[in-house]
Amino acid sequence: MNIEYTAIKLVKRPETVITPDLFEVVKLTTPELKDGEFLIKQTHMSLDPAMKGWMSADRDSYIPPVELGDVMRSGGVGEIVESKNSDFTVGARVQGLTGWAEYVVSNGQGMNLLPENVPTEAVLCVLALPGMTAYQGLMNIGKPKSGETLVVSGAAGSVGSMVGQIGKAEGLTVIGTAGTNEKCAWLVDELGFDAAINYNSDNLQAELNAAAPNGIDLYFENTGGPVQHLVFELMNAHGRIMVCGMISDYNTLTPSAGPNWIPIIKKRLTIQGFTMPDHYDKIPGMIQAMSKYLMEGKIKYRAHTLHGLESAIEGINLLFTGGNTGKLMVAL
Amino acid sequence: MNIEYTAIKLVKRPETVITPDLFEVVKLTTPELKDGEFLIKQTHMSLDPAMKGWMSADRDSYIPPVELGDVMRSGGVGEIVESKNSDFTVGARVQGLTGWAEYVVSNGQGMNLLPENVPTEAVLCVLALPGMTAYQGLMNIGKPKSGETLVVSGAAGSVGSMVGQIGKAEGLTVIGTAGTNEKCAWLVDELGFDAAINYNSDNLQAELNAAAPNGIDLYFENTGGPVQHLVFELMNAHGRIMVCGMISDYNTLTPSAGPNWIPIIKKRLTIQGFTMPDHYDKIPGMIQAMSKYLMEGKIKYRAHTLHGLESAIEGINLLFTGGNTGKLMVAL
Repeated sequence: MNIEYTAIKLVKRPETVITPDLFEVVKLTTPELKDGEFLIKQTHMSLDPAMKGWMSADRDSYIPPVELGDVMRSGGVGEIVESKNSDFTVGARVQGLTGWAEYVVSNGQGMNLLPENVPTEAVLCVLALPGMTAYQGLMNIGKPKSGETLVVSGAAGSVGSMVGQIGKAEGLTVIGTAGTNEKCAWLVDELGFDAAINYNSDNLQAELNAAAPNGIDLYFENTGGPVQHLVFELMNAHGRIMVCGMISDYNTLTPSAGPNWIPIIKKRLTIQGFTMPDHYDKIPGMIQAMSKYLMEGKIKYRAHTLHGLESAIEGINLLFTGGNTGKLMVAL
Repeated sequence: MNIEYTAIKLVKRPETVITPDLFEVVKLTTPELKDGEFLIKQTHMSLDPAMKGWMSADRDSYIPPVELGDVMRSGGVGEIVESKNSDFTVGARVQGLTGWAEYVVSNGQGMNLLPENVPTEAVLCVLALPGMTAYQGLMNIGKPKSGETLVVSGAAGSVGSMVGQIGKAEGLTVIGTAGTNEKCAWLVDELGFDAAINYNSDNLQAELNAAAPNGIDLYFENTGGPVQHLVFELMNAHGRIMVCGMISDYNTLTPSAGPNWIPIIKKRLTIQGFTMPDHYDKIPGMIQAMSKYLMEGKIKYRAHTLHGLESAIEGINLLFTGGNTGKLMVAL
């Protein structure tokens, strides 16, 4: 099949903001498939903050920038419409790095088959990178036991909100920290957290003590800052700390000091940093696990869906103006 | 058999130093053994700094203090001379918590059988707590791979000197830090470390950079202090830090700040604290492993041996005056 389709190429790098002149909308034709390849008709495309980094050059990142003249990179979901690969058959739904294009040819590398009964919006909200990051950190690194107490910082974020909900599904007492009372209310009232604390509170320490009367067994770190030091003091023996982000220190020239290490010995703590590219091989299993939570109604999500490929060009800026109300994506 | 033997009881707690009036030398008689028990004739008794803590009350320690009127606690090695326990037969050599006594009755709990071909002095130098701590931290927690670079702080200490020698036996590049040039020379010339750095050097950072041109994969932390921060900056991706001691901070009211956690994410580091009581079940296996190094001549040790049970009373103070030249022990 040779199908004409629309794609969007990156032709210029952003200065400070993402503007329409960075992109060129083109018409392309799907090629003949080689052995092992298959053709994906993309149905939903994810828009994520990391994509601004992918557009920029000179980034010392875990993934190289998009070359100028290439189709813009993105994650997405689609249906296989033609295949010369017996592992990826026509009609199956896949998720992976697709790009800003209506059709994508893949050899299967980095593509994951999706369960049938999960809505596509849920895939991008729950089964994409933030959900995988949450699962990897909490479950595979933290190894929680039912009844333990978990604190997650940055709890209202795309990763943190998944961490807390997985924690509740696994029988943990879950405490989140976030930056506004509105976010805290959402964590408790909508997502079922046991407690949420505004890190701007004047009584941060007292509120944390009250929320964690039995101490803290697991800390999922997204932010750094004063919360880190207060949680560290409350860690129980054999506590585990999963370090995923330090967003409060990313833009400072003199990052804040960490806690002294004596409690690491006294309480036999384990502190482990992780990034997802080390764990891509576990994604298929994690998709299965997160799908089960979804089907059991244990994970809530909120999608903000734009319509049509070209809506990505302006729409991506919603991420940087705070204009999105949920996980941003484009339905094709 | 009812055998009369000498033992030393603790009858008073130390104020600042250990004085002879803390102890009472008594004559006791070995009892009839019950099923499961056996009688050990102690041949060597270990004297360790931790014993001063065991003599003192009100210690918030991992092990309760010795009760007044009880035989003083210590580690030791002996031969089984009578047994009603099929796992511990007459003629076998055992190691464990024995006490200041010529004979000890045991039911086997906490007692470990020793390989035949290891000299008893080597047992207390290498197969006792410091050696077990070194092995547990480096091998079971650090999981080193041949060719990696290890830094051990407090390298001339009873734990650190074993860590470095195990590291060399496992094919690592081993760098030690210590507080005098004499100790550094001993580490390199006698124990075979690849490099040793005096932490009082004015060029600590430059010396560390020069000694670890490929970065650092494993850090065995015994001290804290400036070395910690410099090593932390040089850690490689997927580095492991085993936190065993923070001796430079134990006596300060305001412990020094730790490093910021951003490198934990960027380099996916694992930092793990440990103490031996969590790992007593692994001691038999670790004794086998350390015995193998010993028989292969890969571990050097230095014993300082006193003679006769009662020599312990005055002799233990050698530990606190720096008068011992090697691992302090008493031959009975």
